[in-house]
Amino acid sequence: MEALTITSDANPRVKRWKKIHAQPRSIRKEGACLAEGLHLAMSARDAGLAPSAVILRDGARDPEADALAAQLARAPGCKLYLLSEPIYESIAPVEKGAGIMMELPLPATGDPGDYADRDVLYLDGVQDAGNAGTLIRTAVASGVSVIAASPRTACLWSSKVLRSAMGAHFGAVILENLPVKEMAKIFKGRKLAADARGGEDIFLAQGWEEGSTVWLMGAEGPGLSDEALEVSDKRLYIPIEAATESLNVGAAAAVCLFEQRRRRLLAARRAV
Amino acid sequence: MEALTITSDANPRVKRWKKIHAQPRSIRKEGACLAEGLHLAMSARDAGLAPSAVILRDGARDPEADALAAQLARAPGCKLYLLSEPIYESIAPVEKGAGIMMELPLPATGDPGDYADRDVLYLDGVQDAGNAGTLIRTAVASGVSVIAASPRTACLWSSKVLRSAMGAHFGAVILENLPVKEMAKIFKGRKLAADARGGEDIFLAQGWEEGSTVWLMGAEGPGLSDEALEVSDKRLYIPIEAATESLNVGAAAAVCLFEQRRRRLLAARRAV
Repeated sequence: MEALTITSDANPRVKRWKKIHAQPRSIRKEGACLAEGLHLAMSARDAGLAPSAVILRDGARDPEADALAAQLARAPGCKLYLLSEPIYESIAPVEKGAGIMMELPLPATGDPGDYADRDVLYLDGVQDAGNAGTLIRTAVASGVSVIAASPRTACLWSSKVLRSAMGAHFGAVILENLPVKEMAKIFKGRKLAADARGGEDIFLAQGWEEGSTVWLMGAEGPGLSDEALEVSDKRLYIPIEAATESLNVGAAAAVCLFEQRRRRLLAARRAV
Repeated sequence: MEALTITSDANPRVKRWKKIHAQPRSIRKEGACLAEGLHLAMSARDAGLAPSAVILRDGARDPEADALAAQLARAPGCKLYLLSEPIYESIAPVEKGAGIMMELPLPATGDPGDYADRDVLYLDGVQDAGNAGTLIRTAVASGVSVIAASPRTACLWSSKVLRSAMGAHFGAVILENLPVKEMAKIFKGRKLAADARGGEDIFLAQGWEEGSTVWLMGAEGPGLSDEALEVSDKRLYIPIEAATESLNVGAAAAVCLFEQRRRRLLAARRAV
């Protein structure tokens, strides 16, 4: 396995990776993201992705990570880099991780209108990277693979979101920076607001899962914005114990998206 | 509001708080935990808890935090402390937080056998503090307020778990260090294993929600231990998309516990 060794942080590639690592907002401009860890590397390989670079940490190497790096680096135009430990750690999201990272070009998503008829999860200002990643993972597992996000939402291609989504990005369409009003015009599905403050009991309300749907989820604390509530066709709440205040947004999304999946799976069985 | 000012980290109270902060395993021995933030302070007040100390950060004070501190400090035997910023930050779980913290005595739970007939969530080696906190929050919101944990699980009274559970601890019974075999003897409810690797489809399987239940949840990655699977009466899986690997443990618990709640709420309506 031939690798280019980098030991200076004045190297222009390192400068670029540092920027991507430190400023998630620069990811869109650079057109690339950094994904770290064995799990993401395996998911990328299994999804047939072509990284533009595979980045390894010099020092005690892990044979599994090395084998994976060699496989990934076979992609056309992909180069393999070996970084001295301090340089690697300066761009790594996790301290003392597995020592393998990929630079991945952001996929071209085309026109959001191409996904007009699809089921969508819309993130309205979810700023916590861990929550955003869990939401993507849960949505894809539930069969909802178009993820759209408001401009105030965390950058969905940041290393932290990628880690927390555990490879779900690679089976999803990610549409960022879609203001809520624009989103509502583009997608045809029924707009469902997950709202702890009112509306109908999600378990009792009927028919909302029929046809395509767009689930709107807000940030921890403030919940959905007024704009998001305005474009919604229906507000649904999860009937939690009176003594508790709310669910974590990731838990709330899991309940909503899997109640949708449960209903659809049952309907499909009945139709057979 | 009269507060004792502490500016030296040689102070024995500060030493104790540092120990609780740095070594979650010392919490049980010290018989007290540290809970930081406005939200937890409000939850503690609303639950009528009596902190043994209220700890404020000196400097730019927040009037809301001060008013809350004064209310909490009225508890018998509670003292109010004002810590210089560096000392406060050395025991605070969140950098630049609201500057209010409580020392709370761990509640006496008595004999686990007192909860033999209750619904239970059992954490089998969940080591991530954020996940553990979300699991407690979700369980309490779903009506399951007895939380038991294996010895390998994160300390459930650590500051991080407390923060992530958002006050759910104060409405829960927390039983730590219960080995799985002992747990299985104590609780009478049906043992349900949330297992991504097999068993029955949770949405199709019938009757598992009747009577009391003990849900067993494993760690991210390894899932449930063999011992936990052995004591289970039923293994249930969530039907996720074939292309995805698994759900985050917090999302999986939300699906399981709210499917249980949905069925029970419907059964209660039918019985009326």
